[in-house]
Amino acid sequence: MSAPLKNDRFLRALRREPVDRTPVWLMRQAGRYLPEYRETRRQAGSFLGMAKQPEIACEVTLQPLRRFPLDAAILFSDILTIPDAMGLELYFVEGEGPKFRHPVRDAAAIARLGVPDMETELRYVMDAVRLIRRELDGAVPLIGFSGSPWTLACYMVEGGGSKDFARIKAMALNDPQALHALLSVNTDAVIAYLAAQRAAGAQALQVFDTWGGVLSPAMYREFSLPYLTRIAKELERGDGADRAPLILFGKGTAAYLDDLAQTGADGVGVDWLIELGDAARRTGGRVALQGNLDPATLYGAPEAIRREVRRALDSYAAGNQGSRDGHVFNLGHGMSPDMNPDHVAVLVDEVHAYSAR
Amino acid sequence: MSAPLKNDRFLRALRREPVDRTPVWLMRQAGRYLPEYRETRRQAGSFLGMAKQPEIACEVTLQPLRRFPLDAAILFSDILTIPDAMGLELYFVEGEGPKFRHPVRDAAAIARLGVPDMETELRYVMDAVRLIRRELDGAVPLIGFSGSPWTLACYMVEGGGSKDFARIKAMALNDPQALHALLSVNTDAVIAYLAAQRAAGAQALQVFDTWGGVLSPAMYREFSLPYLTRIAKELERGDGADRAPLILFGKGTAAYLDDLAQTGADGVGVDWLIELGDAARRTGGRVALQGNLDPATLYGAPEAIRREVRRALDSYAAGNQGSRDGHVFNLGHGMSPDMNPDHVAVLVDEVHAYSAR
Repeated sequence: MSAPLKNDRFLRALRREPVDRTPVWLMRQAGRYLPEYRETRRQAGSFLGMAKQPEIACEVTLQPLRRFPLDAAILFSDILTIPDAMGLELYFVEGEGPKFRHPVRDAAAIARLGVPDMETELRYVMDAVRLIRRELDGAVPLIGFSGSPWTLACYMVEGGGSKDFARIKAMALNDPQALHALLSVNTDAVIAYLAAQRAAGAQALQVFDTWGGVLSPAMYREFSLPYLTRIAKELERGDGADRAPLILFGKGTAAYLDDLAQTGADGVGVDWLIELGDAARRTGGRVALQGNLDPATLYGAPEAIRREVRRALDSYAAGNQGSRDGHVFNLGHGMSPDMNPDHVAVLVDEVHAYSAR
Repeated sequence: MSAPLKNDRFLRALRREPVDRTPVWLMRQAGRYLPEYRETRRQAGSFLGMAKQPEIACEVTLQPLRRFPLDAAILFSDILTIPDAMGLELYFVEGEGPKFRHPVRDAAAIARLGVPDMETELRYVMDAVRLIRRELDGAVPLIGFSGSPWTLACYMVEGGGSKDFARIKAMALNDPQALHALLSVNTDAVIAYLAAQRAAGAQALQVFDTWGGVLSPAMYREFSLPYLTRIAKELERGDGADRAPLILFGKGTAAYLDDLAQTGADGVGVDWLIELGDAARRTGGRVALQGNLDPATLYGAPEAIRREVRRALDSYAAGNQGSRDGHVFNLGHGMSPDMNPDHVAVLVDEVHAYSAR
């Protein structure tokens, strides 16, 4: 049905197969640091308006690929589409991040939640995936994604971002059963959502556990890890040859790398708070690793960016028995609006040039 | 000169000597969660106005001790008094945290910085320490403190709090020599400041490396750890019998516990992102450990608080060959204004009751 893939470095790296150079993409590569993105957004009016119109989501997804020789595209969307479709009503306040009009705060509200229908309530996402695949025409693979069950729950209970996660942690302490019920329906929804994105054409899938790192180890092992594991296991049972590799990304979760490597996921996304070589040693070739430059490196001058890129590439190889296989280059977290597109070009070129063999 | 200490549990624990029960104090125990604090602040007008008037700083320091049987008092002050005294002019905007009117952004501005005179420019701190010691009358030991060289530098360069630390990380990448010059003068100032607090009567000292955890390991080892080590080494050379034990607290720096335990500090403060038993195993009795309940535990119901307190106490003992020695109970980070004082009472009582022998 679709065009053969011209650049499969990213998928090969996730399978830990040899590649001619290390593939690279950047979290939030389609974003406000690009003038053409700001122009599209000005016309569309809002972030959510862009994400919900497949033509615009497609245009924005492709923008960074016109500038930089990136090895993957990632669907332009939000990590919170699922709770929005569950009826919580996502909205954005400038400078304050995402919020929900109807947060869920107790067992009764949680009991009313259900898995949204993917081809009606989240059809705009699937339409975007189909359109982007057509427009990409096999240039690079397309990554679909979702927030993790725990990270979705944070926003759903807090009603938005939080500094201390007081409400959801109080729920974890006082009514863990209610929280497990919430995480359980979120997990069902994430699995259905990622499977639907895969069916629509996504060639790899990433789960963002943005807030996994705010939990104590005991709470992480109770409220986040088991649900990530279930996602990995159930998506693995998917359709054989057509299986899209799964990447689990967590912020501040380097302490759980061994556990994440045992979930059955193909890749683990690593933030910049651990040496990539240490991460490679600890996971011992069981998964591909994706990361892990501090995004703030892009505030450095070009020579500093090149130096840090080489350091990260060398660190990975040193921890991976001298081989660059199984490494997808990325930042350790998303890009920021005030970053310089010229610096992104320097980063991408250096990854390819230095890793070429 | 001063009254003999009636409760030396805290100091004994820092020396890893046996105690009748585990000592406990809480970071930001003197703060807005207390109605009497809010009343004092209303009268004084501002946070900084309170910190700069020794009588008010003394009153506020003592407030939590009148409510709870805490085993230590901590000077009411700010971690940023040093750069304020260097001429950067600290001020606070409601809901935005600390800011500096004159941030330092280049080598020329850094070259103009000098170590403030402790008994003139920071006399209000030393007067507060002397007054609190007198008023405490030996009830419990008094802790003095400072921000770490790196954490001070973050605020000095960014001009306030930051989400991504873009400016200081750009300096680290593009002009590391300038940043080292800044960290060096900060370190000289922190050492002089802590020594002066000790001379004025502080019986223990804590350094807050609040932002150590935003750095990659390579940067942490270049820009934070060596300066913490210098502080520990130079304060150790202090006056024999009168030596005040030093605690190094870092947020998000559990990966460096081994390094911190080798600095020569007496105690290491641990956040809640590591099991306390693992921290004890990794430091192997070389230092006392202080921590590490997730502050959000105080949002839980009393029974949940008691359960988590017991878990932390047991975790420490399990990692410390069955012994509670060398543990100072604390939160893994500071308290928040919306916490319930009754819950603090539950926590403090449970620490003492459960650890009693």
